[in-house]
Amino acid sequence: MRFLNACLRKKTDATPVWFMRQAGRYLAEYRRLKAKYTILELCDQPELAAEVTLQPIRAFDLDAAILFADILLIVRPMGLKLRFVKGEGPEIDPPVRTEKDVARLRRFHPEEGMGAVLDAVRIIRRDLADKVPLIGFAGAPFTVASYMIEGGPSKDYRNTKAMMHASPKLWKKLMTVLSDNTADYLKAQVDAGAQAIQLFDSWVGALSQSDFERFVKPYSAKIIKAVQRKGVPVIHFGTGTTPFLKSFADTGGDVVGVDWRPHLDDARKIIPASQAIQGNLDPVHLLLPRPVLKPLVKEVVRRAGGKKGHIFNLGHGIIKETDPDTVKAVADWVHDWTS
Amino acid sequence: MRFLNACLRKKTDATPVWFMRQAGRYLAEYRRLKAKYTILELCDQPELAAEVTLQPIRAFDLDAAILFADILLIVRPMGLKLRFVKGEGPEIDPPVRTEKDVARLRRFHPEEGMGAVLDAVRIIRRDLADKVPLIGFAGAPFTVASYMIEGGPSKDYRNTKAMMHASPKLWKKLMTVLSDNTADYLKAQVDAGAQAIQLFDSWVGALSQSDFERFVKPYSAKIIKAVQRKGVPVIHFGTGTTPFLKSFADTGGDVVGVDWRPHLDDARKIIPASQAIQGNLDPVHLLLPRPVLKPLVKEVVRRAGGKKGHIFNLGHGIIKETDPDTVKAVADWVHDWTS
Repeated sequence: MRFLNACLRKKTDATPVWFMRQAGRYLAEYRRLKAKYTILELCDQPELAAEVTLQPIRAFDLDAAILFADILLIVRPMGLKLRFVKGEGPEIDPPVRTEKDVARLRRFHPEEGMGAVLDAVRIIRRDLADKVPLIGFAGAPFTVASYMIEGGPSKDYRNTKAMMHASPKLWKKLMTVLSDNTADYLKAQVDAGAQAIQLFDSWVGALSQSDFERFVKPYSAKIIKAVQRKGVPVIHFGTGTTPFLKSFADTGGDVVGVDWRPHLDDARKIIPASQAIQGNLDPVHLLLPRPVLKPLVKEVVRRAGGKKGHIFNLGHGIIKETDPDTVKAVADWVHDWTS
Repeated sequence: MRFLNACLRKKTDATPVWFMRQAGRYLAEYRRLKAKYTILELCDQPELAAEVTLQPIRAFDLDAAILFADILLIVRPMGLKLRFVKGEGPEIDPPVRTEKDVARLRRFHPEEGMGAVLDAVRIIRRDLADKVPLIGFAGAPFTVASYMIEGGPSKDYRNTKAMMHASPKLWKKLMTVLSDNTADYLKAQVDAGAQAIQLFDSWVGALSQSDFERFVKPYSAKIIKAVQRKGVPVIHFGTGTTPFLKSFADTGGDVVGVDWRPHLDDARKIIPASQAIQGNLDPVHLLLPRPVLKPLVKEVVRRAGGKKGHIFNLGHGIIKETDPDTVKAVADWVHDWTS
């Protein structure tokens, strides 16, 4: 299939297109469900998660579906409380900061701790009937650990960076239990039917190159390798990764996600030829009038240097004010230009 | 003087040290004033602004003073209303978005529109009595324009980027009037006694390389050149600039500010040898215990590759929970190691 071939840098008939957060609030059909259910209810009821996952696949000509779930669900079977507070995002209370907090974190069996997500994967695969492949995902351990330690979103990750530097052994323990759980969870997604995996390290760009290499890279690399041994490709995504893009690529993803900041041809020179790239339209550009947007989309395709080993996507997720017709138009343009 | 020599890549007896936001809430003496006055009152009363500027100079062995002011003061003589809303930051209401909004923006004479700041500069120079040089500053036009357009802080700069791409002529008009006012304001600071200027493009890292080069660089370059013609060095600062660090350096600052993300030796390879560098300790590292912090400070000094053309600073401003004794310790370490 087009998307899976691109992940492996094989020839494709056109550049594959999907969008981060393609299942989400910009879609009226999603908002109708969201009016009735909370995010956690949508994630915890496999039929609903499957329905949300499939909404954009029905609406647009996309080359992959991505599981609807949340990167923080994994903290619950580890023994933490997760809430979503309106207007403030996720809250993990109490945060994980001491030896005792980390020692309490549980290893869990994915079918027990994350059974609803795995059931959703099975339903989606059945309903997709091989129309397009399904991408499973998890949060990368740095981004998830940062929420666990800060207790929610953070501007400067001060507690997370404090644990890294002032309590490196504790950081190691936390990252180890989190990585092991994440690897098991992703392998179980593959067993349930996921055909590719994206590891989301959304906030890793807050780190310096030194911090990334010392405190993050070994754990993400181990997860990526564990998933690849199951025979599926891994997309490694982060924003703000340009300051350590070579290290980020060397973490080992089959596909390296690139945010909107660098020129894709510059990124292509840094990322080894053996790896595919994914990106990198600025998500806010989808708010522009169609004639203004079109050349910006074209520039991304041009700088990708041909369809081989390029997966078209945004540099981050679709924002909720986006017009669904624009999403449709972009997918169609990219397919037209590259086929 | 040590700091001014370093700006020009001349030999110094030790690496100069100053800290962004060295006059601020982490200082008890600042908090005592802040309990009595609002930020705008502190900026608008020259004696108070001078007092705040001098507080850290009295407390620590720093190599430069930086004027206490706010980058958004300049919007007031242009005809806009500026407020600081507790817990939410600055608010400019109504925001500047249409032809009409931009057409209404005024050119102003610095001694009339920004007289209080210029008076503060004169008082500070007198009180400093050449103990250390005084850095004046302004916000770079992108960062100030983004506040004007968004009406306050923004997560994704959607309206700013929309103006750039969908209304490039309007963007040009806005950036032109803002740049012209900024250049005049900075030249007036030099006339009043500022011995170096820092141009703060704090949020420029939200942009792609393309956007920076097309929509920002020409305006910042023009301001930098206008100040340099007055015979004082310019420090060009931004965060998240690594994806376009070469272009950022080529904008022409005598000194290029580097945030905490890249290794300083890597940045040094990208920034031409004719330019000095400033940075780049992670501000949250100042919250670490002294023995953990010390090797991190040492690494910055080591990666700077010697004291020639290096000004030690943070990658962004001091955060308010910082212990003043730590600030003192860092300044002393850097001086000791390099003298």
